[in-house]
Amino acid sequence: MTRTAVDDHVSAAVDATNATRIAVSTVIFTLRRLPGGDTPVVALPLVRRTRDPHEGQWSLPGGWLDVAEGLDAAASRTLAETTGLAPSYLEQLYAFGAVDRSPTRVVSIVYWALIRPEIASSGVGRSGADALENVQWFDAASLPRLAFDHNEIVEYALWRLRNKVGYSRIAHGLLADMFTLAELREVYESILGRRLDPANFRRQVENSGNLIPTELFRTGSHRPARLYRYNQDVELADRGPLDARD
Amino acid sequence: MTRTAVDDHVSAAVDATNATRIAVSTVIFTLRRLPGGDTPVVALPLVRRTRDPHEGQWSLPGGWLDVAEGLDAAASRTLAETTGLAPSYLEQLYAFGAVDRSPTRVVSIVYWALIRPEIASSGVGRSGADALENVQWFDAASLPRLAFDHNEIVEYALWRLRNKVGYSRIAHGLLADMFTLAELREVYESILGRRLDPANFRRQVENSGNLIPTELFRTGSHRPARLYRYNQDVELADRGPLDARD
Repeated sequence: MTRTAVDDHVSAAVDATNATRIAVSTVIFTLRRLPGGDTPVVALPLVRRTRDPHEGQWSLPGGWLDVAEGLDAAASRTLAETTGLAPSYLEQLYAFGAVDRSPTRVVSIVYWALIRPEIASSGVGRSGADALENVQWFDAASLPRLAFDHNEIVEYALWRLRNKVGYSRIAHGLLADMFTLAELREVYESILGRRLDPANFRRQVENSGNLIPTELFRTGSHRPARLYRYNQDVELADRGPLDARD
Repeated sequence: MTRTAVDDHVSAAVDATNATRIAVSTVIFTLRRLPGGDTPVVALPLVRRTRDPHEGQWSLPGGWLDVAEGLDAAASRTLAETTGLAPSYLEQLYAFGAVDRSPTRVVSIVYWALIRPEIASSGVGRSGADALENVQWFDAASLPRLAFDHNEIVEYALWRLRNKVGYSRIAHGLLADMFTLAELREVYESILGRRLDPANFRRQVENSGNLIPTELFRTGSHRPARLYRYNQDVELADRGPLDARD
């Protein structure tokens, strides 16, 4: 392993066992309506690198794991530091550790997260992602060439998102607390990248036991549409025994 | 990596960023028929620790990540070194990194694996797990108190196994190339820990498109039972874009 550029704090005294460093990065998805677009698309914030390697290229938000913090905490911290965002859902995705993925040996423990569109787009003063320099939202389906293996990481995260939306309540992480069936369907359509039959969709979600109809209706240019909420007795996404750890 | 590095403790000279070390461990499952037992149980090999911390306690097979090897390679290598086993299926499970999980800071990237019963029990000369000192098979449902957070890790791996058996061909990793429906059902029953209705089970797997009937039959004390094989066009377990990486 060569100790070059990557950063300032590599000491010369470490032995080979310790020459591998751990980074934590997060793929954070939301839905965004692009100018002129019909349905929203899956979007994610990227951070422009300000030093080598890959200076000037876009990369996933992240940073080094601190020796005194847990992995989940490091994911939340580095995400907040780089983008100002706090997600509604955060889960460990995968550890990427190919030897040649960086000029020095770095294992990246990657999380994936969801954030509701109104939070992603409004931001909260200086803490909103849009307010920070060097942070920008991208359409997940048409990314530029990213730093390191980050294109590959996003591709895997998208695959996980598409899989998970099918058998869990994960769509809730992209919706307000109450929503119409059309809004819910739009989330599914954006993630899956295809249209769903409204009548079939309604039947499936109504049979799932996951949704509770409220007495409220969304009114506007169309006929009033009933608002639903998720059944809180059902987990957002079943992570099994690990849920109890946090 | 040197063998002694596994249990060595932190050298005093490393700086904070580099004081976190990476271990790779594997939860490797097979099915074993216990003496007097009616159906096989899910079993895994554990390694008795020969030095502190947790000297004398049982732990998952594993070792330190070498600076020049990928994560998958490290999982295969450390598994072979500690148990002599080479699994039929190996997949990254989760990175465990709680600050207090070890006296020094260690992030364990854990894999899970399956091995077919006849391979697990016969072993291959000295390379079989049973042939090695300090390696022993345990019933996954009744483990002693293991070293570190390894009980918690096994619990999570079992949860993943139970989930995955429902929506993938994962059971094939525990079966010979050809098998009867009763043998397949036994795998499901062992993993899920409950009896399944034979007629329902037959209907479900026949409708799944995953199985191909052969013209061969298993004969013996019962009436001849047709042998099936898995449809090789269907992936053992869909790991998405990551499958292409290996």
